[in-house]
Amino acid sequence: MKNSFGSSVSVTLYGESHGAAVGCVLDGMAPGISVDEGYLAKQMSLRRSVSSLSTPRKEADKVRILSGVYQGKTTGTPICMMIENGNTHSADYAKTADLLRPGHADYTARIKYHGYADPNGGGHFSGRITAGLVAAGAIALTALREKGIVIGTHIAACGGVCDRPFSPDPRAELEALADAPFAVLDEAASTAMQAKIIEARAAGDSVGGILESAVCGLPAGVGEPWFDTLESVLSHILFSIPAVKGVEFGDGFALSAMRGSEANDPFRIENGAVVTSTNRMGGILGGISNGMPLRIRTAIKPTPSISLSQPSVNMATGENEEISVVGRHDPAIVHRARVVADSAIALVLCDMLSLRFGTDYLKPND
Amino acid sequence: MKNSFGSSVSVTLYGESHGAAVGCVLDGMAPGISVDEGYLAKQMSLRRSVSSLSTPRKEADKVRILSGVYQGKTTGTPICMMIENGNTHSADYAKTADLLRPGHADYTARIKYHGYADPNGGGHFSGRITAGLVAAGAIALTALREKGIVIGTHIAACGGVCDRPFSPDPRAELEALADAPFAVLDEAASTAMQAKIIEARAAGDSVGGILESAVCGLPAGVGEPWFDTLESVLSHILFSIPAVKGVEFGDGFALSAMRGSEANDPFRIENGAVVTSTNRMGGILGGISNGMPLRIRTAIKPTPSISLSQPSVNMATGENEEISVVGRHDPAIVHRARVVADSAIALVLCDMLSLRFGTDYLKPND
Amino acid sequence: MKNSFGSSVSVTLYGESHGAAVGCVLDGMAPGISVDEGYLAKQMSLRRSVSSLSTPRKEADKVRILSGVYQGKTTGTPICMMIENGNTHSADYAKTADLLRPGHADYTARIKYHGYADPNGGGHFSGRITAGLVAAGAIALTALREKGIVIGTHIAACGGVCDRPFSPDPRAELEALADAPFAVLDEAASTAMQAKIIEARAAGDSVGGILESAVCGLPAGVGEPWFDTLESVLSHILFSIPAVKGVEFGDGFALSAMRGSEANDPFRIENGAVVTSTNRMGGILGGISNGMPLRIRTAIKPTPSISLSQPSVNMATGENEEISVVGRHDPAIVHRARVVADSAIALVLCDMLSLRFGTDYLKPND
Amino acid sequence: MKNSFGSSVSVTLYGESHGAAVGCVLDGMAPGISVDEGYLAKQMSLRRSVSSLSTPRKEADKVRILSGVYQGKTTGTPICMMIENGNTHSADYAKTADLLRPGHADYTARIKYHGYADPNGGGHFSGRITAGLVAAGAIALTALREKGIVIGTHIAACGGVCDRPFSPDPRAELEALADAPFAVLDEAASTAMQAKIIEARAAGDSVGGILESAVCGLPAGVGEPWFDTLESVLSHILFSIPAVKGVEFGDGFALSAMRGSEANDPFRIENGAVVTSTNRMGGILGGISNGMPLRIRTAIKPTPSISLSQPSVNMATGENEEISVVGRHDPAIVHRARVVADSAIALVLCDMLSLRFGTDYLKPND
Repeated sequence: MKNSFGSSVSVTLYGESHGAAVGCVLDGMAPGISVDEGYLAKQMSLRRSVSSLSTPRKEADKVRILSGVYQGKTTGTPICMMIENGNTHSADYAKTADLLRPGHADYTARIKYHGYADPNGGGHFSGRITAGLVAAGAIALTALREKGIVIGTHIAACGGVCDRPFSPDPRAELEALADAPFAVLDEAASTAMQAKIIEARAAGDSVGGILESAVCGLPAGVGEPWFDTLESVLSHILFSIPAVKGVEFGDGFALSAMRGSEANDPFRIENGAVVTSTNRMGGILGGISNGMPLRIRTAIKPTPSISLSQPSVNMATGENEEISVVGRHDPAIVHRARVVADSAIALVLCDMLSLRFGTDYLKPND
Repeated sequence: MKNSFGSSVSVTLYGESHGAAVGCVLDGMAPGISVDEGYLAKQMSLRRSVSSLSTPRKEADKVRILSGVYQGKTTGTPICMMIENGNTHSADYAKTADLLRPGHADYTARIKYHGYADPNGGGHFSGRITAGLVAAGAIALTALREKGIVIGTHIAACGGVCDRPFSPDPRAELEALADAPFAVLDEAASTAMQAKIIEARAAGDSVGGILESAVCGLPAGVGEPWFDTLESVLSHILFSIPAVKGVEFGDGFALSAMRGSEANDPFRIENGAVVTSTNRMGGILGGISNGMPLRIRTAIKPTPSISLSQPSVNMATGENEEISVVGRHDPAIVHRARVVADSAIALVLCDMLSLRFGTDYLKPND
Repeated sequence: MKNSFGSSVSVTLYGESHGAAVGCVLDGMAPGISVDEGYLAKQMSLRRSVSSLSTPRKEADKVRILSGVYQGKTTGTPICMMIENGNTHSADYAKTADLLRPGHADYTARIKYHGYADPNGGGHFSGRITAGLVAAGAIALTALREKGIVIGTHIAACGGVCDRPFSPDPRAELEALADAPFAVLDEAASTAMQAKIIEARAAGDSVGGILESAVCGLPAGVGEPWFDTLESVLSHILFSIPAVKGVEFGDGFALSAMRGSEANDPFRIENGAVVTSTNRMGGILGGISNGMPLRIRTAIKPTPSISLSQPSVNMATGENEEISVVGRHDPAIVHRARVVADSAIALVLCDMLSLRFGTDYLKPND
Repeated sequence: MKNSFGSSVSVTLYGESHGAAVGCVLDGMAPGISVDEGYLAKQMSLRRSVSSLSTPRKEADKVRILSGVYQGKTTGTPICMMIENGNTHSADYAKTADLLRPGHADYTARIKYHGYADPNGGGHFSGRITAGLVAAGAIALTALREKGIVIGTHIAACGGVCDRPFSPDPRAELEALADAPFAVLDEAASTAMQAKIIEARAAGDSVGGILESAVCGLPAGVGEPWFDTLESVLSHILFSIPAVKGVEFGDGFALSAMRGSEANDPFRIENGAVVTSTNRMGGILGGISNGMPLRIRTAIKPTPSISLSQPSVNMATGENEEISVVGRHDPAIVHRARVVADSAIALVLCDMLSLRFGTDYLKPND
């Protein structure tokens, strides 16, 4: 297991879906960063289900800060946060404990943990573990915002419906998305996506989607090739988020069908600064930020828990057997995952900036 | 800079395109693995240009082993390999040293290295640095093959032309690809792709492509969530390869438009073993291998060096200025990149297997 | 800040002396290891003061397990433990908050954290942070014991009084020390040491000491030179323990005055196994265990908090000023530190063994 | 094997005593640092034997720079250096290849590498591997000197003879030691030590010693507790150096016998700066530099290769057998090890400073 990530700024996650608590330890953040409980609570609420779209787990998701914050500011020492679990229905899982849920980690966890893992609610493989990431991310996002670096994510696609992409300079769009429970730029797309989700739920099925994230204000010169390119480190953390199966930067896979003359972003001088006229590279050249907005797209597979019957295997009997996953589950998680993406990106950028410019870089100016 | 990657098995890369040498240090490989100079030379040759497709740099690319190999076998100590550079034409670069080449790292390297980096041929950002990765990868591929684990990559798309995908059990296809200079499954696609490359070259332009890689024989239970999922670690190294802008596993981005009932791979018992009927997840569930073939797709942007005129900036004058990149360059690198992908994947798997099963796991049975 | 240590098995510490809680996240432990709450409580109690020797902080030091343990056994996922603080007297510190306590981290913490660190009770620099290490260590010690590896530490010197050293095969001595509140081999030395501590307390002063640790049962072949020699990794964690200023292995500094013919441990065959006749090297050759008992000595400086008046600086006024440290403090910590040393050594060995033999190595045999 | 060390600035070592070459990759050094071949050669010469004291291996030890240096300055990319081996007498080793040399890694290497390691001259366990460390260290020392940070080491003890200790402000002493082939402060001690070495050689035996190192000019606030205290990271690398068996900071083990009132360094204001009146803590409080000189002592065991007959085991026969180590070997290495200590300390400080203040910190001011 490797539940810590980051070098200068690192995050460690812990917890099981139905255990005592989930949470994180955020280490290496500069001292002096404001920790606002209201903002923390707001970010946690974005990770929870939208009530019209699912039968959500009713967790207060109250974050308790155990260390590293003093008089409302980070101290520079490790910040442990915990979110106690409640409202657990382990009985739901007991019935089908020996049936492998397709699309879940049930089988691979059995092999790796030899049957000792907590099976309830997916245990440590549950999406609930992202609560700790979001708590850590809230502090990272605050620190970056103080430096003029803003991160945001919208649902670029869901259930086959597409939103319009971010505009070339998306700062205002990022601000506008900050509090949206269902983060979409185009209202019509939002309505259509939500209809698809409800339709899937009615069919006992689920849908996936694509997140598009952007970062404005990141200075040029951040990234540590050869191996710790910005793309490498960002994709590393994004692929850690459950259900992510693809990541691309800038025009990503579409670049593979272009010619060089179309793909290359032309340089020009603008107000004395070097900029590019297009941003097909997503703000990254040679693995290092070039000062243009970062653009990242993340593919989210459909929620694996569906009530439709699926072929499976009963590990107790060794026989093929159908499974219908009962209990509380979401027909879509893409709208909940967007704050997870923001948080993950923020943590990476805090780490890369602190490596590049020192451990005091994120400290507010006095 | 972060030029080392891996935990139990690690690789460190060094070198500049026009410096004395490029190469690697491969550390942590088990003792006793055969190092065959013929195989090493063959792998290096796959990384070089196909003569009909480009005006290649004529490097012998002879690998000199400085340490870590004794009597033809790895000793368990670090293996330093060097490939001396020759045939360098630095004069080609001097003419345009102050003009930022679009799509290249010229601008970001200036910001990061304050003008001290070796500019010739892209310096440490050159694709030539992958020679060290291929040398290390040759030993990793040998070690894995001894354990029944086979890795291979074909050009799934190039210049807009698509190859057929790997079949569900691609072991034979992987073997067949091993020595192909232009690795494609469907001969007609190969011809069409090469025509596209030649066409782009004639236009002073370039093309990109998509690589599809597969791994057969990887045991279930490999991967270290939460953060070191197989997808995370594989994408990390793949995004380190110059020109890579997208990575997806299994059906990747296509999964985002499916319903759960379509995306989930049904389980079933086959000859006493748990398998899945489809493999949309690409052999990875919960970040851990499930025993099915790994499937990975990597998007390669078009080669940024093109002779067509492009808008740029002259850093000496601070003025906008057109650039036409002269000198030796490839109209496509996708066919050369496939052995780099194989090597990168092999190094990650050696690391993950050694972490999981111990540092002697890759040692041949006596 | 770097509050995580270890590679395959890692521990992350968090907490401040007077914050909400202190604790740890232990990651990478094999699944199936028994977690016995009684043993955990016993280990925690060894870290607390002996009532006759100090005016101890009366903490219950109850460990609450938040994750990673299911049905009394480790699951293989991260184990977060917390020990809530109570009985804090921050008012004691407010009076002298601007006076630098000699021998403490007050000054260096100010420089590093720019005044944002929690000053009460030393904050994150308090010896109380070792409570998390001891909690993690209890699980590590249990896992090792199951594999026949036993660790123990006695007070080799305190206040100038010396205990007798471990015998060549100290396994029985290690067992005997397990529950001792004041761990000494020679009862007379124990009495004399405690007299020295009480004498120092009466004088408003403090004493230091030396710990001698031993490990029996560690297999040969563990250690990862060049840089991760057993000595390197053990000293790394031992020097993290507050107040440690020296570490030596085997005969350590005394070896520097010997001739080679005296220092070299002669090899011989005993019952078919290679052993050494002496063990001046402390069980480590070339940075790798040789199967003989490990022997480690750790120097502990005197507790810096003393009530005697000392010259200092008032950071608010920038003037020289005398300080007398008031409040609860120990005239010695060497007897409390021994369980910290055991825990630290155990965590390192779990990590090194898991790296060497795989992540399942510490899993109990079924 | 773990042959890389460091986080922001890292060094990777490779090579075997009798292989093609030994060397290093130094990664993460800031761009713009001068690389002076004369200084590099001088440092390498300090690592070689003093001819009056041993029958030295006559290596030119010419350092060839393969990458990372352009026009005499570091580029910011990895610096690979190689030192070709010559003058190897592998035949010397063949005779006794199955006899375990007491005090050497022969036995532990067999267990760990299963007989595949290069046995000649100790292979990767040879002191010759430190040549790569010294080459890397030369660049690190240059970078630090530019920032006013000076490092030096003298032989505090050898063969039972003691040098006088460094004075409280040892900067001038450090400068004076820079080029000394036998680095001692007190000339009489030097003569006596060398007599002891020659005496030991005549007896077919060897001696050890103690190194005292000091660092002047290190700013306060460097060190990353809890786990990466300055003591932790420095001891980690020092214990990687072959033959080191003890490390202490400040008064080290002697502190354990003091009272707190004697051990604590009083603070006072001097010219507006906080200083301590004594420096028993060796410039480190709470694991963080306090601006006073660092003081480090390192115990070196006697060279294990002696020609006197010693009891051993023949691994081919499994029988006890006497061994007399023939071939070239030093009766002492302490005078050669001092430049290795300087280099190791310099590499750690470059890493810690770059982590603390950013990757450009060591770049010279323009």
